[in-house]
Amino acid sequence: MYHCPLRWSDLDAYGHVNNARFLTLYEEARVAMMFVNAREAGLTSFEEGIVVARHEVDYLRPVDYGDPVRIELWIDEMRPSRFTIAYELFDGDLLASRAKSVLVPYDLVRQRPRRLTEQEQAFLKPWLKT
Amino acid sequence: MYHCPLRWSDLDAYGHVNNARFLTLYEEARVAMMFVNAREAGLTSFEEGIVVARHEVDYLRPVDYGDPVRIELWIDEMRPSRFTIAYELFDGDLLASRAKSVLVPYDLVRQRPRRLTEQEQAFLKPWLKT
Amino acid sequence: MYHCPLRWSDLDAYGHVNNARFLTLYEEARVAMMFVNAREAGLTSFEEGIVVARHEVDYLRPVDYGDPVRIELWIDEMRPSRFTIAYELFDGDLLASRAKSVLVPYDLVRQRPRRLTEQEQAFLKPWLKT
Amino acid sequence: MYHCPLRWSDLDAYGHVNNARFLTLYEEARVAMMFVNAREAGLTSFEEGIVVARHEVDYLRPVDYGDPVRIELWIDEMRPSRFTIAYELFDGDLLASRAKSVLVPYDLVRQRPRRLTEQEQAFLKPWLKT
Repeated sequence: MYHCPLRWSDLDAYGHVNNARFLTLYEEARVAMMFVNAREAGLTSFEEGIVVARHEVDYLRPVDYGDPVRIELWIDEMRPSRFTIAYELFDGDLLASRAKSVLVPYDLVRQRPRRLTEQEQAFLKPWLKT
Repeated sequence: MYHCPLRWSDLDAYGHVNNARFLTLYEEARVAMMFVNAREAGLTSFEEGIVVARHEVDYLRPVDYGDPVRIELWIDEMRPSRFTIAYELFDGDLLASRAKSVLVPYDLVRQRPRRLTEQEQAFLKPWLKT
Repeated sequence: MYHCPLRWSDLDAYGHVNNARFLTLYEEARVAMMFVNAREAGLTSFEEGIVVARHEVDYLRPVDYGDPVRIELWIDEMRPSRFTIAYELFDGDLLASRAKSVLVPYDLVRQRPRRLTEQEQAFLKPWLKT
Repeated sequence: MYHCPLRWSDLDAYGHVNNARFLTLYEEARVAMMFVNAREAGLTSFEEGIVVARHEVDYLRPVDYGDPVRIELWIDEMRPSRFTIAYELFDGDLLASRAKSVLVPYDLVRQRPRRLTEQEQAFLKPWLKT
């Protein structure tokens, strides 16, 4: 679970958090897991070797400027060469948005997709929702 | 077809256009169609009465700072109370990303979804890809 | 004093918080004071009746992604028809940036500058640094 | 002179181009000069060796979503180890904002300010307003 404070600049001309900005909020939750938490577990390979292949976002209700939103995230699917993060974004008690991101491990030197390492799989496994 | 100039600030710490920012580029193409083109056709109801229900974005290759990207967009599906815009984003000759947005006409006064008006349907029909 | 969490998307292609983004961080601190704190004090006239006339920002050292930055802010000067907010932004113990914003009370209906009301002056006075 | 197209996402909740976003528009004009034009002149040292030391921005009138704004920029002052870019931003025929940026050449390897090279001075000189 990740608390993401909103910024006044997240609002667009309609006075709600802009729909494109939701991807930035989800990005913060993903970065907290894959960069910050992973680094605490001794794993830094995600920081330079992950590519976003796809995002899906569903918008259920508008979000206004106010208290931090709460993002729950988990691993929805894990394959040898890609995995999917699922998210739910809550505004207070209300589910305001759902999203999924397909991520692909990438070998930046050889410039091509690679498989998840064993260390990466071990890190991700506890995040799998069963 | 819409030419969207990139900004240096579209780049993230990896030196490529940030994945969340693609939604902002698609937004520009959508705004050009639904606000600017529609207004030229005498139609302003989209400006205050459309809600984004869903986005899907596929990322095929990274985009760097440089020439404007080219976005093709069309109506993929039109139903009485929702329609889908499909997009392709080209960096030079290369297809770099595809996306879809599900849009819902909305009655802001009554705070509930509404049907597309006849004028709106007439505006959208030429954009339908057959 | 205001704690402003950074976002990974605050970084630009150089891997530091982008210099333009500092104004957004200062904006958050200003909004916390003039919208949130003021509203708690029963004052909402700033929310629709203030115009930014000028910003100055000095950059003393780069800020990287990490812990929230701390922004101190106070009223530097108060005149009948304008006032100046001064800020200092700390990254840990280190002063990373200083800024000033000149703000002008504005009558949105008559579309012209106005004087600070007595209630506004009473709210701002405790923020004056002497 | 630089034409900078606006984006709908430049608007904030007040429906005008956000004041912090002006720095991003000025950044685009500066990047066009110091990265794109300089590279065409065979000069790439600005891209990795310039630090922003200060910005000043004056806001004269609000800018709405519409036609590209026009930014004039020139070198206001050139010293051995720093120079100042001045800008004016026009919305149609109207001057909407003025700004200045103090830039410091920087030696990224030694992590300290450096002097402008002769090649850099030769590039900047024609931009000096006399």
